[in-house]
Amino acid sequence: MPRPPQSDEEKAQTRCRILDAARTLFDGDGIKAVSMRAIGRRVGLTASALYAYFPSKVDLVRGLWSDAKDDLTRRLQDISLAHADPLEAIRALGAAYAAFGIEDPLRFRVLFLWDDDSMNDDFYSREENQSPYFVLRDRVAEAIGRGLIAGPDDADLVAQAVWASVHGVVVLNNTCPDFPFRPPGLLVSTVMDAALGGLRRGIVEGEGR
Amino acid sequence: MPRPPQSDEEKAQTRCRILDAARTLFDGDGIKAVSMRAIGRRVGLTASALYAYFPSKVDLVRGLWSDAKDDLTRRLQDISLAHADPLEAIRALGAAYAAFGIEDPLRFRVLFLWDDDSMNDDFYSREENQSPYFVLRDRVAEAIGRGLIAGPDDADLVAQAVWASVHGVVVLNNTCPDFPFRPPGLLVSTVMDAALGGLRRGIVEGEGR
Repeated sequence: MPRPPQSDEEKAQTRCRILDAARTLFDGDGIKAVSMRAIGRRVGLTASALYAYFPSKVDLVRGLWSDAKDDLTRRLQDISLAHADPLEAIRALGAAYAAFGIEDPLRFRVLFLWDDDSMNDDFYSREENQSPYFVLRDRVAEAIGRGLIAGPDDADLVAQAVWASVHGVVVLNNTCPDFPFRPPGLLVSTVMDAALGGLRRGIVEGEGR
Repeated sequence: MPRPPQSDEEKAQTRCRILDAARTLFDGDGIKAVSMRAIGRRVGLTASALYAYFPSKVDLVRGLWSDAKDDLTRRLQDISLAHADPLEAIRALGAAYAAFGIEDPLRFRVLFLWDDDSMNDDFYSREENQSPYFVLRDRVAEAIGRGLIAGPDDADLVAQAVWASVHGVVVLNNTCPDFPFRPPGLLVSTVMDAALGGLRRGIVEGEGR
């Protein structure tokens, strides 16, 4: 006897369970080594039931990526809205990005695809895949426009420099957890203080120290 | 008839060829999926000949890691010796680290172990495995001692902030090559300018721009 059709909520829950299982298996064994069958087995689905949700492993990887990206974007947008001052917003965005990456390293690695080559080469070049970045860049452009940043008059260059600086803290923390790093929160605020200190206009000797 | 014994130079060459083959295979398929047999086959060695050089895959991974670390350490030491001024040295060390990571992403990834778990948990906590870091930290300590850095009076915190900032540029460049980043050299110098600008003593508005 056929099962009754699933509600939308049930379908969303199943999709979520599949993505969770895939994330765990990919992280343990690498994307290449994990079969769709193994993912289905972990969530109690037949191959054909699984394929109704994700027709291929690439779709699954993209689903994981897309969820993480949307999650990060929403979080950054909320942070940005909470800060009227663009420099305060940039600092808070850096801290939120670091928290996102450090609290769940697996999800953070998903965003960077485990260096997987199942994506197209032009994956990150598409604007719809850059939404978290645009949240930061918009506030950097605002800071430059208001004369709050004396550094290069190039919002992309400045935003990328800030992003890279805080990205490095997350990645080092997650890949070398046994290195005697200072606490990540302190390291993030030092990196942001240094970067914004060097970028913002009107620094005088000893100010703010 | 047994082959004549190899000279030390021949042995060093064979060791090098094994490491190159392992590096390529690990990068393509992941450490877990590559067998010692596959590595031996690639360099034309029997398993027993290979085991004479590297008794296990962990030894091979450590050999790769150790070579990359020694290479980076030597390069940073040379850069450090070439700069009497500690702030100039720190800036040049950042640029050299970035160049090391960008010119050969595979070797750079070796340094961070592909997130491999074949290492002990305390791998990076051992001082002998931190030699590249100490080159930077020594110059940061010198800059703090000479009053050239107004930031935190903690050489480890400052050195780690500088390291993380430039590390982020390398990692983003290598993991998202299709993202429309500004040229890596420009991004590295912007990151170092911003970080050192915020850290060093005596910044006045508009100085150096």
